[in-house]
Amino acid sequence: MQFSARNRLQATVKAVKLGDVMAEVTVALPDGQELVAAITRTSAESLQLQPGDQVVAIIKSTEVMVGKEI
Amino acid sequence: MQFSARNRLQATVKAVKLGDVMAEVTVALPDGQELVAAITRTSAESLQLQPGDQVVAIIKSTEVMVGKEI
Amino acid sequence: MQFSARNRLQATVKAVKLGDVMAEVTVALPDGQELVAAITRTSAESLQLQPGDQVVAIIKSTEVMVGKEI
Amino acid sequence: MQFSARNRLQATVKAVKLGDVMAEVTVALPDGQELVAAITRTSAESLQLQPGDQVVAIIKSTEVMVGKEI
Amino acid sequence: MQFSARNRLQATVKAVKLGDVMAEVTVALPDGQELVAAITRTSAESLQLQPGDQVVAIIKSTEVMVGKEI
Amino acid sequence: MQFSARNRLQATVKAVKLGDVMAEVTVALPDGQELVAAITRTSAESLQLQPGDQVVAIIKSTEVMVGKEI
Repeated sequence: MQFSARNRLQATVKAVKLGDVMAEVTVALPDGQELVAAITRTSAESLQLQPGDQVVAIIKSTEVMVGKEI
Repeated sequence: MQFSARNRLQATVKAVKLGDVMAEVTVALPDGQELVAAITRTSAESLQLQPGDQVVAIIKSTEVMVGKEI
Repeated sequence: MQFSARNRLQATVKAVKLGDVMAEVTVALPDGQELVAAITRTSAESLQLQPGDQVVAIIKSTEVMVGKEI
Repeated sequence: MQFSARNRLQATVKAVKLGDVMAEVTVALPDGQELVAAITRTSAESLQLQPGDQVVAIIKSTEVMVGKEI
Repeated sequence: MQFSARNRLQATVKAVKLGDVMAEVTVALPDGQELVAAITRTSAESLQLQPGDQVVAIIKSTEVMVGKEI
Repeated sequence: MQFSARNRLQATVKAVKLGDVMAEVTVALPDGQELVAAITRTSAESLQLQPGDQVVAIIKSTEVMVGKEI
């Protein structure tokens, strides 16, 4: 299945924090920069996310902002 | 100014495509992976985004999804 | 690849409107209700979306609102 | 009040899970497909959402992605 | 119809810029601060948005970030 | 740092509700209208958000919808 979200970053799971409804998943990119995803707890559990897992961080392009020192 | 968006990725602008209302900005991360941002044309112009610019890709954590081979 | 977006609705493409940067894709659900997706033109072209295509409409749960007659 | 969100799907509430800050609301479309909404707990309570309620799932078109078997 | 989006700001339309797929709508709040909405052209046309219109800017709480001088 | 999010509203923090993963921050605009942000708990803590703080509510334009009485 190919889908329209343009951004798919290879990453490794560093930490998974499960809350009652939501979960916070921290992943590291190959260059060491980190990304945090706030997904539902149910999603985190159904993906059985564990530190060390190879995953893809997926982001729709309309959700990405750009900052620049002017 | 510090703000709540957890994800701030250092990147370099690769391409800027200006449309009538929106603009598509492609940036490269240090590890070579690319990110695409769909922002308004007005924003792209006010930031004077040019290929080669050092920028930060900013993403709220609730906008990041995770994929995993099961 | 399994991913965290909870909402994956089976649908059929009804129309594709290509703009300069963005594209508007209208799909119909089996029950006849319609969904509109605003994705980048590049995505619509790389998926070669055509009326009649069987697709999945994918929506992160944090993007879904609920309305109710009170 | 008419508003710009293009996607308004008639649905029936199946389950409501209240967390400390967020709530997860599962609804069923007429064709049996399910949608999950992550909204704030305060919203779920002020709408008095209960299983069996007739509701509308509202989604801005820029939040809808499309997937296709290629 | 009451719905879950927590943020509904009374505003006046200042400008409407119609693109091929998207439209940019600038509104002013009573305190003079401005908000810009990027919605689909079809939505802007179906709402017949005109400068001077009294409208409501609607924003899901998961889409609001916070910045603070530290 | 200048960034692409078009909407930056001056506001004062009214309340901060910390959950396990998420936090709900209510702010008041100068005209008295309120905005609610759902951000991660970690963000709320790192910004040390307290009632009375002067902050900026930041919203990407693609996340703003418009409603109008027709």
